[in-house]
Amino acid sequence: MDGDDLWKDLQALAAYGRRQDGGVRRLALDANDVEARVWLIEQGRRIGCDARVDGAANVFLQWPGVQPDLDPVVVGSHLDTQPAGGVYDGAFGVLAGLQMLKSLHRGGVLTRRPIELVSWTNEEGVRFVPGTSGSACFTGRKTLEAMRLLEDECGTSFGDAVDACLARLDSMDVPRSQLGTSMYAFLEAHIEQGPVLERGGHSAGVVTGIQGVSWYRVTLNGRADHAGTTPRSARADALEAACMLTMAMREACRDPDDCVRFTVGRFQVSPGSVNTVPNQVIFTADLRHPEAETLDALHDKLQELAAERWAGCQATLEHLSRIDPVDFSSAVIELVETSAGDLNIDAPRLTSGAFHDAIHLAEHCPTGMVFIPCENGVSHHPAESITPRDALAGTRLLAATALRLANQ
Amino acid sequence: MDGDDLWKDLQALAAYGRRQDGGVRRLALDANDVEARVWLIEQGRRIGCDARVDGAANVFLQWPGVQPDLDPVVVGSHLDTQPAGGVYDGAFGVLAGLQMLKSLHRGGVLTRRPIELVSWTNEEGVRFVPGTSGSACFTGRKTLEAMRLLEDECGTSFGDAVDACLARLDSMDVPRSQLGTSMYAFLEAHIEQGPVLERGGHSAGVVTGIQGVSWYRVTLNGRADHAGTTPRSARADALEAACMLTMAMREACRDPDDCVRFTVGRFQVSPGSVNTVPNQVIFTADLRHPEAETLDALHDKLQELAAERWAGCQATLEHLSRIDPVDFSSAVIELVETSAGDLNIDAPRLTSGAFHDAIHLAEHCPTGMVFIPCENGVSHHPAESITPRDALAGTRLLAATALRLANQ
Repeated sequence: MDGDDLWKDLQALAAYGRRQDGGVRRLALDANDVEARVWLIEQGRRIGCDARVDGAANVFLQWPGVQPDLDPVVVGSHLDTQPAGGVYDGAFGVLAGLQMLKSLHRGGVLTRRPIELVSWTNEEGVRFVPGTSGSACFTGRKTLEAMRLLEDECGTSFGDAVDACLARLDSMDVPRSQLGTSMYAFLEAHIEQGPVLERGGHSAGVVTGIQGVSWYRVTLNGRADHAGTTPRSARADALEAACMLTMAMREACRDPDDCVRFTVGRFQVSPGSVNTVPNQVIFTADLRHPEAETLDALHDKLQELAAERWAGCQATLEHLSRIDPVDFSSAVIELVETSAGDLNIDAPRLTSGAFHDAIHLAEHCPTGMVFIPCENGVSHHPAESITPRDALAGTRLLAATALRLANQ
Repeated sequence: MDGDDLWKDLQALAAYGRRQDGGVRRLALDANDVEARVWLIEQGRRIGCDARVDGAANVFLQWPGVQPDLDPVVVGSHLDTQPAGGVYDGAFGVLAGLQMLKSLHRGGVLTRRPIELVSWTNEEGVRFVPGTSGSACFTGRKTLEAMRLLEDECGTSFGDAVDACLARLDSMDVPRSQLGTSMYAFLEAHIEQGPVLERGGHSAGVVTGIQGVSWYRVTLNGRADHAGTTPRSARADALEAACMLTMAMREACRDPDDCVRFTVGRFQVSPGSVNTVPNQVIFTADLRHPEAETLDALHDKLQELAAERWAGCQATLEHLSRIDPVDFSSAVIELVETSAGDLNIDAPRLTSGAFHDAIHLAEHCPTGMVFIPCENGVSHHPAESITPRDALAGTRLLAATALRLANQ
């Protein structure tokens, strides 16, 4: 495993969408994301891998096995980022997988089963809401037909963006493959995006599952009025209402263990003029917890709060998506632990606070994840940072586990 | 005075920036605003008025007097609107003035002094903050040099936007005039934008002054974190902080008489991603009251609140602008009342809750305003509505007063 080459690949990929502040903006299926796929396919073909792409623009690179008809072991993650994202979220998992393929190529190693690298489309859910679109379509959790209708803020549909990407890959003669093809196992390496591994001084961690997540969109409708003439008592100020409602929701989600995650991330105020009382606010809420029952109870609370009137305004709450908490395959978890022991990597078990494409793959085949620490737990930010040492350790752990699985 | 023609002009002008919802979007110096000026100048020239434009792109149309060297009586308002504005705010005052010029032309009437119509630039303060730019530059309240540096959200400067407008008017051979030329008096007709006249069943009102207004910009800086992994206790959520701070400010501005006007109109949340804790919120506050002392006291309160820490975030408050309450010329007020009596219009006195270009002109020359009612007091909204009857009454009152002044 060549740690220097892995690091070089991470920096090379970051050129696609590099921001002046050192971060990366590579939104799903934008020009940077499409060209990053082209780069990835070129890297894979250079070492003798077969590339293919499915109808959701998920890209695969296959290293053949001794028995090519057996279901493959698949590793991978995603290339898209947040608008002001970092270099490593998603990219690390894809390039750890690429480095594994490169080492198989360098060593001329053939496993019993094929080994594949995958890059899933629109994991972040920034450009098209919700995220993990590619893996959700692949596993059948969502239908591609429904997904294709989703539009970004400029009115471009997911379907049109996928087609533009496929046209680019057609020009490289990348063959098309089916959604939902069988896999023997799936492994995803990712930065932790939390503080546990760094605090404990660990280079890697064995992920046992992913907490559940619900996404909501709340719309508050009031009335636009002139800021100078309309008395407070005559207003229906949608912004005042939204501030009150988000505060009430935050309070409802407060728990003594600080385990519930409640975040209002988007918050759009109309008409957005200094001297006009806002007539509409649309905000999103992201709610997470490791237990489905807690998510259910909080869902009911949020709905109750949205049903009240706030500052004279009417609220409507839409439930955009819900993903139940997932436990990964115990067989895969144990295999990752065994591999960590062999490599002398002290890798504790932990659950994932973030969702990942692995959440869908867990319904499709035995699935596991490997985490590496990131500085101060920061992600979704240009300051996202990892060390070359941890990157190499995580890649070794991913590859060792994948090879064990591929020889089963 | 031709009420049908006035109504036709109002609808013709509304074509510049007409929205599908029936409202108007004609932002200061945008293509619609520039072409609306062209239309206005063409209307004026058709009846023999001389057009000119000053360095702030304020447009003037002059009907000559018997003694053309005397300081003119000037009437007017503004052509720009809110992003989702109505047909009448600003436009009514300009077109009432145009109708007055047309009636002078129709009757072949010459007054002792010249009578002018003016359309002031960027009254609304939507595209370039703060508003009343044109009249503030004209009266010397602001310097044109400083104003030219202001940028809109796309980075276009006020100066460049003015120059583009002037270039368009150059193509029509509209001569350039100085800022700050002398005026004998200034009169502005406007919709009330409040409920007083409609409630009382009055077709017009005599405005005695304008309440004072302060504009603020508040920036809250927190830290972007992943929504799924970062415990509440480890967050510095700029949106949570902004909700708390705006609620505290609202509370500080609560008064038993419901006389203080406090409005948060713009509210921008970054990065605006569903699953990222917001790291920055920038919001504006619009504060108004008829008494300068109350504005001062509330200013101090807002500053105290902004100096506190909110949800672990730092706030900074900038005071963008302050306009003191203004009392109009008692001579002009009395003349408007006398004219109303002559015309059999029952026009009560009232103060303006909104600010207007007249607030600056009051420092420049004897100034007054005429209000007409608008439906439900609604303005800054596509639903803005007036009746032809009130429009005609207000125009008669404006013209009668202007003629009295012009013969002084």
